[in-house]
Amino acid sequence: MIYQQQLRIPGPTPLPERVVRAASRPMIDHRGPEFAALLADVCAGVRRVFETENEVLVLTCSGSGGLESAIANLVSPGDEVVACVCGNFGERFAGMAAAYGARVVRLEAEWGQPVEPDDLRRTLAAYPAARLVLVTHNETSTGVTNPLEGLVRVAREAERVVVVDAVSSASSIPVEVDRLGVDVAVSGSQKGWMAPPGIAFVAVGPRAWALSERARAPRYYLDWRRARQEAEKGMTPWTPAIGVLYAVQEGLRMLEEEGLAAVYARHRRLADATAAGVEALGFQLYAAEGYRSATVTAAVPMPELDVDAYRRLLRERYGVVVGGGQGKMTGKMVRIGHLGAVAEGDVAQVLWAMERALEDLDVAPADGRALAAAGPHLAPESVAVTR
Amino acid sequence: MIYQQQLRIPGPTPLPERVVRAASRPMIDHRGPEFAALLADVCAGVRRVFETENEVLVLTCSGSGGLESAIANLVSPGDEVVACVCGNFGERFAGMAAAYGARVVRLEAEWGQPVEPDDLRRTLAAYPAARLVLVTHNETSTGVTNPLEGLVRVAREAERVVVVDAVSSASSIPVEVDRLGVDVAVSGSQKGWMAPPGIAFVAVGPRAWALSERARAPRYYLDWRRARQEAEKGMTPWTPAIGVLYAVQEGLRMLEEEGLAAVYARHRRLADATAAGVEALGFQLYAAEGYRSATVTAAVPMPELDVDAYRRLLRERYGVVVGGGQGKMTGKMVRIGHLGAVAEGDVAQVLWAMERALEDLDVAPADGRALAAAGPHLAPESVAVTR
Repeated sequence: MIYQQQLRIPGPTPLPERVVRAASRPMIDHRGPEFAALLADVCAGVRRVFETENEVLVLTCSGSGGLESAIANLVSPGDEVVACVCGNFGERFAGMAAAYGARVVRLEAEWGQPVEPDDLRRTLAAYPAARLVLVTHNETSTGVTNPLEGLVRVAREAERVVVVDAVSSASSIPVEVDRLGVDVAVSGSQKGWMAPPGIAFVAVGPRAWALSERARAPRYYLDWRRARQEAEKGMTPWTPAIGVLYAVQEGLRMLEEEGLAAVYARHRRLADATAAGVEALGFQLYAAEGYRSATVTAAVPMPELDVDAYRRLLRERYGVVVGGGQGKMTGKMVRIGHLGAVAEGDVAQVLWAMERALEDLDVAPADGRALAAAGPHLAPESVAVTR
Repeated sequence: MIYQQQLRIPGPTPLPERVVRAASRPMIDHRGPEFAALLADVCAGVRRVFETENEVLVLTCSGSGGLESAIANLVSPGDEVVACVCGNFGERFAGMAAAYGARVVRLEAEWGQPVEPDDLRRTLAAYPAARLVLVTHNETSTGVTNPLEGLVRVAREAERVVVVDAVSSASSIPVEVDRLGVDVAVSGSQKGWMAPPGIAFVAVGPRAWALSERARAPRYYLDWRRARQEAEKGMTPWTPAIGVLYAVQEGLRMLEEEGLAAVYARHRRLADATAAGVEALGFQLYAAEGYRSATVTAAVPMPELDVDAYRRLLRERYGVVVGGGQGKMTGKMVRIGHLGAVAEGDVAQVLWAMERALEDLDVAPADGRALAAAGPHLAPESVAVTR
């Protein structure tokens, strides 16, 4: 019997008690004044996290739906689109563009490596007609955080419109939309926002709005123009996931009480601690040094470890749920999520369980080395205790 | 100060306490065994409500997103599509088909009237190339329930694929998918299912699957093939609105404890009581007799009543929220929702408030006539008290 499962996947993330209570409020009329106030408050909070004056649209869908909205609103069949791909989510984004009839130019980096700005510059020079650039900020499948500032700068210098998948980064890793010049940024409620899945946020800047006026892909449910038009009246075009929005509102309050700088520092600390711990256990970090994500750690185990059996043991005996590999890495890695409502003790718990489970499977003895390695990175004294 | 707002709009509907508690469970891995069990249970329950052996797909979006999925998966640009339109939601459905490049043949009925099967027969004869027929079962904007059985029979006799918007009917009004031969039926979690918004259900039959294989509209997030493929593994292609699914699961349990026949009878009783009450108050029922919806009553007031002021007074003084008119009826009617977790006493409350508010506005005296007229239709002894 596990009393409280430890959800250490890169989203959905654990819900703080405060968020659960907030999400449990009664339903309201989505065409009434209470909803208008809720929507305005959430949009203002999301804008502060994105550090942008751009409009933020609230869509009832997963983060992938938010990404698809960018394709549906910006792409016309036959358009050239440059997609930066270094993992499964980059593949997905490129696949969406292809599904909408774009001619997709793939700028690929090896899995575990970032996409380099210099490579993007060369690609854009070679494809001058490509107006749109797709960038995955945090590639959840490989644990790589791409060099967003450099990639956006290159795209903007080449006068392209740049769309950033910030689903698993925004609210955990800085995404300075206005300073960097990100034209479209997309995130999803079930990540660092500490809310359940069901809502995507899309920050749309003026160059993207201009491009969307000319785009000819079919769109209705995900149509940004309808969303903007209704937002002016304090509404969404379709019935929104009201409960998830209550949760996001409370999650935003918690982020602001802790302070975004502290939130970002906490994610970085937990990532460094996790990396040190799993390396001490004999795992290889999959992401290249210098590009390791603050929200998810991808680790490749020793060849003798049966990853599926290991994950099952972690789940069933220790109540710790970690992610597996995706795409070509299925069954070959573990991915430990440390984003959202996660603090120092949670990392201690997952590392302790991972070490014990290795011993259970006769792979390596449990001698406390994971926590010994992680310890110096942890700083429990700096964690805000929320009430 | 209103302690408990009475949400009498046609969705979102009030959440039973049991549903709120169920939706408050911790997040889980959407790629793990707990989610597979949840998804299977919800799909089985939805199939029982739809009375179908067809596959039920679970999409994270509003009901409108579910409707759009039918268009995106069944329409190719240039296709002829027959859309039955008798109100705002029929307009929306037709508009979606047009947005995807269909040549839309509109079979229009006057607002307040149903679409007649004989008219559909003639239209289908005149447009033999139209493979798809769009039917709004319950037109929420006018309070009309269309004669589903007759319309589906005509469509099937003419060998067309028929898509039914059952968003505000299914789980409150019978939608016998298999017996009638409905090829696609769509509903949304925030209606009679007694859950928050965020999930659409789509029941897809074999003829619709066959047509979808040939359809060439772009689709990715709403792609039925991906949804089916992942459902076979106990998953959804994209992160699903887990909290809403917990809520749906509990709502389904409550529907089955009460028994669907009793649920349908309750909705009919409450509609008849509401109709009698608002007529006694001097409102005109907007929907034609014989086609009045069991889930929403549309009523046009005496000309001297300022509808906006009346709705505001109901909301602010009585805590009763009723819907207004949509489209060309904006500001000209009230729409009273009585679907989902609504029972006899709730109708008494809304009628009492409506009568008192007419007196407050010096339109008519409050003499108890609304409840006197509604009373004979109410049967509190037959309501199940849930725990």
